[in-house]
Amino acid sequence: MESPQSVYDQLRSGSRVALAQAITLIESQRPEDLTAKKQLLNLCFETDSPSIRIAISGSPGVGKSTFIEHLGLHLTQSGKRVAVLAIDPSSDVSGGSILGDKTRMEKLSTDQHAFIRPSPSSGVLGGVAEMTRETIIVCEAAGFDVIIIETVGVGQAEYGVYTMTDLFVLLTAPGAGDVLQGIKRGIMEKADIVFVNKADGDLRDSALRTAADIRNALMMTWKAGNRKITVLTTSSISGEGAAGAWSALTEEITNARSSGAFDERRSRQKEQWFRDAIMYQLKNRLKNDDSLSALENKLLMRIRTGATHPIDGAGEYVSAIFSTRDD
Amino acid sequence: MESPQSVYDQLRSGSRVALAQAITLIESQRPEDLTAKKQLLNLCFETDSPSIRIAISGSPGVGKSTFIEHLGLHLTQSGKRVAVLAIDPSSDVSGGSILGDKTRMEKLSTDQHAFIRPSPSSGVLGGVAEMTRETIIVCEAAGFDVIIIETVGVGQAEYGVYTMTDLFVLLTAPGAGDVLQGIKRGIMEKADIVFVNKADGDLRDSALRTAADIRNALMMTWKAGNRKITVLTTSSISGEGAAGAWSALTEEITNARSSGAFDERRSRQKEQWFRDAIMYQLKNRLKNDDSLSALENKLLMRIRTGATHPIDGAGEYVSAIFSTRDD
Repeated sequence: MESPQSVYDQLRSGSRVALAQAITLIESQRPEDLTAKKQLLNLCFETDSPSIRIAISGSPGVGKSTFIEHLGLHLTQSGKRVAVLAIDPSSDVSGGSILGDKTRMEKLSTDQHAFIRPSPSSGVLGGVAEMTRETIIVCEAAGFDVIIIETVGVGQAEYGVYTMTDLFVLLTAPGAGDVLQGIKRGIMEKADIVFVNKADGDLRDSALRTAADIRNALMMTWKAGNRKITVLTTSSISGEGAAGAWSALTEEITNARSSGAFDERRSRQKEQWFRDAIMYQLKNRLKNDDSLSALENKLLMRIRTGATHPIDGAGEYVSAIFSTRDD
Repeated sequence: MESPQSVYDQLRSGSRVALAQAITLIESQRPEDLTAKKQLLNLCFETDSPSIRIAISGSPGVGKSTFIEHLGLHLTQSGKRVAVLAIDPSSDVSGGSILGDKTRMEKLSTDQHAFIRPSPSSGVLGGVAEMTRETIIVCEAAGFDVIIIETVGVGQAEYGVYTMTDLFVLLTAPGAGDVLQGIKRGIMEKADIVFVNKADGDLRDSALRTAADIRNALMMTWKAGNRKITVLTTSSISGEGAAGAWSALTEEITNARSSGAFDERRSRQKEQWFRDAIMYQLKNRLKNDDSLSALENKLLMRIRTGATHPIDGAGEYVSAIFSTRDD
């Protein structure tokens, strides 16, 4: 493999080969790649980028891929470079990414100003957030102006994506049963913009009604003192909705920049990265510590036979961490 | 508050007041409750219980509450005692449980042989799994025969529930769009039984077709060497489907017991508890360590101003953990 500096230089000059190399290095779990990875990341960290990080979330079937494809094409046609990174919370379990199919965005994936990256493989268990953050940094250093993080699902995974983006977009469909039923409520309160998609043809009226329903539902949270959430309809069938969607997104960003909310949120992104990185590095360190690994195995044996309770075993292990010294 | 031994004795004799006290103690975050909590848990740990732990998962709208209510009533009418514990992955974000509404299971919640517990509040951030496991142990000591863990969503939260139960049941609805689209695939491969609900009236044919579709979709994973997953239709409108559903569940359990899979899975439940408890206790310990907290604040300041990168800050913090001594 080439030197980190060489990969970085080619990355800066727009080489897609270098971008692929850089991401392979970032996703590498091999101890011998660690130093190079760190060097490359440090070079990327120091590169200023005016990028915007946008999360686009939504259940399967709401038309997320088509929405992103049209938005992405609109951006590349406006001279911007777009990276789409997918995070798939279920890939940890199924051992493979369901969002990893580039053919979902046929035109965008062949666009030379776009870069589509499927979810990191399950080989990086627990490190998906870490790896996505690092990939964002690399894409920004490579000159991508808009970084889209595509995600699906609810709960923790979604919250993770929220903590690494400047704008959280929720895409939903007309009459989507889950909208008001509550599953999305936690997410919806985190959203900056909710788009009701498929507002075209027969579904147009239904989309308008759904948007009104969501506005009413969110009204209660506004009354409770929360900030306002923009709720709009959009269509991704013909691609003509993309320009409108983008102008709504840039308006949010412009407002956030002038109010200071943008910088504040970037600052919180760094704090969360710090906290996540602590747990990630700590787990790696525990895994690679011989005496702690030996203790873990001993405790596991006793836990399996019922001689020790899991909670007591954990207590013994945690105490051992704090009595371990570097020397 | 009464002594742990007294709470335990009353718990064993079937007191619901003692059960509520015990769970309040478990959910307590007050340092002064720690010793009592530990004593109570140790008493419960030592109590043998022939209970079955069943996870019931499914998106909102598939009829989960009604299914559980009918199943629960069928069980209490057969002389069994049933505890229903809810885990809501979105409550971390929204700051409140959406599943916490007892009125969802009107009859079961007034049944004296049933106990329904909403999701632990968001005050126990990160400790939901820990608390649910402890609540399971308390309910088993209190003599509940069947522990149902109700959950919603995908990904990590679902996986957490998988690691604390003997049987994972996925409930879905006829023609549910997400079924074959992939969002549930990771979960479906973990399921022991998939029930297509609402197989009654107009939806009966559609439910049968959906069940056939799921069987076909799963066929590929069977060919890949995975174990077979039972796919059945059920109805929870009248409650007459509950007996059939229960007999399918007990058949799975009986098979698992005789093949040794049941004991193997209980053993893995303990192992996962041990691993989760390590992270839970470790986080608490880090939070309460004065010198580490001071370092954390110092690093956060530097990270906010951009003087230190989050990854480097995390590295410094993790090194400090390992150079901290108990003395």
